[in-house]
Amino acid sequence: MPDLPMPDLPHFAPVQVAVTFVGAGPGAAAHLTLGAYAALQAADVVIHDRLVGAEVMALIPRHVQRVDVGKEGFGPSAKQSDINAVLVAHGLAGKRVVRLKGGDCGIFGRLDEEIDALEAAGLAFAILPGLTSATVAAASIGQSLTKRGRNRALRIVTGHDMEGFADQDWRGMARAGEVTAIYMGKKSARFIQGRLMMHGADAATPVTVVENVSRPDEKVIAATLADLPEAVAALDGPAVLLYGLAPRQAASALSQLKEARA
Amino acid sequence: MPDLPMPDLPHFAPVQVAVTFVGAGPGAAAHLTLGAYAALQAADVVIHDRLVGAEVMALIPRHVQRVDVGKEGFGPSAKQSDINAVLVAHGLAGKRVVRLKGGDCGIFGRLDEEIDALEAAGLAFAILPGLTSATVAAASIGQSLTKRGRNRALRIVTGHDMEGFADQDWRGMARAGEVTAIYMGKKSARFIQGRLMMHGADAATPVTVVENVSRPDEKVIAATLADLPEAVAALDGPAVLLYGLAPRQAASALSQLKEARA
Repeated sequence: MPDLPMPDLPHFAPVQVAVTFVGAGPGAAAHLTLGAYAALQAADVVIHDRLVGAEVMALIPRHVQRVDVGKEGFGPSAKQSDINAVLVAHGLAGKRVVRLKGGDCGIFGRLDEEIDALEAAGLAFAILPGLTSATVAAASIGQSLTKRGRNRALRIVTGHDMEGFADQDWRGMARAGEVTAIYMGKKSARFIQGRLMMHGADAATPVTVVENVSRPDEKVIAATLADLPEAVAALDGPAVLLYGLAPRQAASALSQLKEARA
Repeated sequence: MPDLPMPDLPHFAPVQVAVTFVGAGPGAAAHLTLGAYAALQAADVVIHDRLVGAEVMALIPRHVQRVDVGKEGFGPSAKQSDINAVLVAHGLAGKRVVRLKGGDCGIFGRLDEEIDALEAAGLAFAILPGLTSATVAAASIGQSLTKRGRNRALRIVTGHDMEGFADQDWRGMARAGEVTAIYMGKKSARFIQGRLMMHGADAATPVTVVENVSRPDEKVIAATLADLPEAVAALDGPAVLLYGLAPRQAASALSQLKEARA
């Protein structure tokens, strides 16, 4: 594979604008897009969150400046206004800036606040989306996020928002067969459990917790709504909760990454 | 960029199993993952849907056998049982098979039915997810799919299912500030409009239609719920409806791809 050349990408020229937002995916370099990889190679400076995977960080060329702005989603982190200021300063300095965010920058990535700051400074931007952890976690357990005859809709929600635990459409989520990917749901696991059961969810509903999605230390915990708080209690890495999905039983259900590691 | 080597992908070896499901993303080669690209290079045969983009198809090496199974999501298409049979036959013949699906194979991709067929035949599989069109469409209009103070949940739904127009949680979708990505919503646009308005949705709610996402002929139509059926009437390519999102107004809002084409 190291002998494989990068393909030509028609209609694509990386980092033509002041700032390119790039979704890093959940961790593994294999889940980075060709465009994102090309953008990292063409950057002068990469401004990145703490949650970007080590494999992706290793793909940034040595000569490129790295700025860690330490953001971890909705949790405690660097002040957003400080991040905006760093972004604008590098953009105004004429640098080719990549703003590298874990997962998909458009899903719980606070992208709009950073775009607003760029626009206020008159800086142009572009967005290269990445794989969000829900889709990679589902692949890892051999399941799809939607399925004929089971769910014709998928919800992606956060366990946290600005006010603390996030209120959601618990009644809709609690219906049999529904599938919801819950981000930042570790601290709010008991709250989520209580709300869903109050709205009639079956305590035996499967909830698969995937920690450190696609990283060498990825961990899959097959839980149910009944034991969800206990299932997440010991985790300290980022995790996504797949409510309504159990890991596929068959031994053949392996992600490509797990297969290669085995 | 053609001089750029493919990076080493730690812990990743493409096509170790009989069949690797690969999400092709919505169209542009720039949105394909590094792992998906590597899997295509290592394949003996690629079994693909009709909706896989031409740029991605062009990345399949010449010596690799291609089998078009002509599927187009929930619409009229090749019989699923025929597709399953093709997949199993190539897998049992000992070929390194890539099953290439448009978008993300785990979202409205009928992945489970194909996995069931493989398991029944004793064939191992792996899944490499791709970017789903909603996330790329949102990037194209300079918006994020979730936003602090606007929506703390995202819905991804289909306009069609096995029974025809798909029933959905219209009341939840109709609430102010909610964002829903609607797939296969062209034929069902009038039905969706009616259901949402019946449940109290504001007729002025923005709905952005993105046809041929990330392809050279990508088209963005800024509509509202009031004029949605007219907005989609003339489209014949695949389209995603971003209910609750309007294109960002500023001239600086460009996707990286559009920028490069300009």
